[in-house]
Amino acid sequence: MTNQRTVFFISDRTGITAEALGNSLLSQFENIEFNEIHLSFVDTFDKAKSAIGKINNASAKGNSLPLVFSTQINAEYRELIKNSPCIFFDFFDTFISKMERSLNLKSSHTIGRLHNPNSNDYSSRINSINFSLGSDDGLGSKNYAQADIILIGVSRSGKTPSCLFMALQYGIKAANYPLIDQDLTNTELPEILQPYKNKLFGLRIKPERLCQIREKRKGNSAYASIGQCQREIKRAEDLYLANNISFLDTTQISIEEISAKIISKLSLR
Amino acid sequence: MTNQRTVFFISDRTGITAEALGNSLLSQFENIEFNEIHLSFVDTFDKAKSAIGKINNASAKGNSLPLVFSTQINAEYRELIKNSPCIFFDFFDTFISKMERSLNLKSSHTIGRLHNPNSNDYSSRINSINFSLGSDDGLGSKNYAQADIILIGVSRSGKTPSCLFMALQYGIKAANYPLIDQDLTNTELPEILQPYKNKLFGLRIKPERLCQIREKRKGNSAYASIGQCQREIKRAEDLYLANNISFLDTTQISIEEISAKIISKLSLR
Repeated sequence: MTNQRTVFFISDRTGITAEALGNSLLSQFENIEFNEIHLSFVDTFDKAKSAIGKINNASAKGNSLPLVFSTQINAEYRELIKNSPCIFFDFFDTFISKMERSLNLKSSHTIGRLHNPNSNDYSSRINSINFSLGSDDGLGSKNYAQADIILIGVSRSGKTPSCLFMALQYGIKAANYPLIDQDLTNTELPEILQPYKNKLFGLRIKPERLCQIREKRKGNSAYASIGQCQREIKRAEDLYLANNISFLDTTQISIEEISAKIISKLSLR
Repeated sequence: MTNQRTVFFISDRTGITAEALGNSLLSQFENIEFNEIHLSFVDTFDKAKSAIGKINNASAKGNSLPLVFSTQINAEYRELIKNSPCIFFDFFDTFISKMERSLNLKSSHTIGRLHNPNSNDYSSRINSINFSLGSDDGLGSKNYAQADIILIGVSRSGKTPSCLFMALQYGIKAANYPLIDQDLTNTELPEILQPYKNKLFGLRIKPERLCQIREKRKGNSAYASIGQCQREIKRAEDLYLANNISFLDTTQISIEEISAKIISKLSLR
């Protein structure tokens, strides 16, 4: 029988921070099936009471206390929930007093300052998403001059989701250019990319994995065949090497990791 | 003179969790300019030494110790960095022993289990991104049957970035349909949307804000004029009300908040 445990993520806003740290901690424990309950915008007394009701239920049903990961800033609701039958992980309060001492300042205890839609950071993220959408798959090559980075790689090597993630998370203007057969007859850089050599970054993927991904898209096609995948990947890699373009194998890593690695390698922040 | 402080975000992986919690804490302190240094993939002795070198520099230059937000799992490198001249916030170790006691299990202390590209969650996120891209702006209305949600709203009310965020963060298949003039001559639901009424969610935005956004896109156009924006918004709202469609004003909230509110309202998780 699998070990089961209920976990609450509770926040007065989106809950994204509670999930990031909570999931990072949970991922350290294998062999437990975590039943996740997400309660966001718990910012009134009624919602706090309702959260406590759910914790009481989970506690009454299970053999063990539910875990609660909280980023609640409002002290009143936080204390109410903390005193319900649970094991409480306080992601906010644990650090805020140390921060106050270190900075020699009182914190504002203001909710909702993290994702501020009026900030420059936010505008830059939204603009970058629009930029990425308009510069996807070789579209909008006239935008390359404005791009922070241009990802290149064969079809389905991970360019589009990586570009979107870089835009959304970091406000990076990421364009992409798909290497197609006609670009891969020799190792010369496609003409359209030549002025932007210093912005290029190549993606690589294992042919077997690429074949799987393409099969799902167009089953039993020449496009998805292992031979075609092997040829394209080999030639793309030759092109990267001949032109001294940094590249990364994406087979076993997520778009979060692809993006963070590229950003770190090119010092894009 | 503005109060300045150097802040390091250090992680053995992407650093996304360290940033989420770190920025959430920093956002509680106004009037300080934080100089952020992001060090990701600090997973070797040399990289840990290099990080310490940077902390030493920051410490020598400033009048006060730099803050370090760390999610490092590797205890050896974490301890090295912790003992450098900094104020160390340990986002991992602070909670992991309590987790171990609560779960009565040892944690695996394995790096890189959070963004696992072989997990079902991950595939669902990538599939949802592709779904959103193929169902953007009324494209791919044949996909509506597969959609978890269909966002509707006038041009530039925030549909596309919200859909992408829901896909990327939560693996939700989000399509969107733009309400154009011909949809707004009366309050009847466009025919193409009628079979999917239970999946619809409306976005609203203040006309003044919409006008600003559209001006940036197409300056001095009828499309961007305040009159046109007021008319479209009013009619879209009438349409939501007449058809009993939930809707949300996006003027003052981020795509993170739009997404989290919709998900919470429609119980999409």
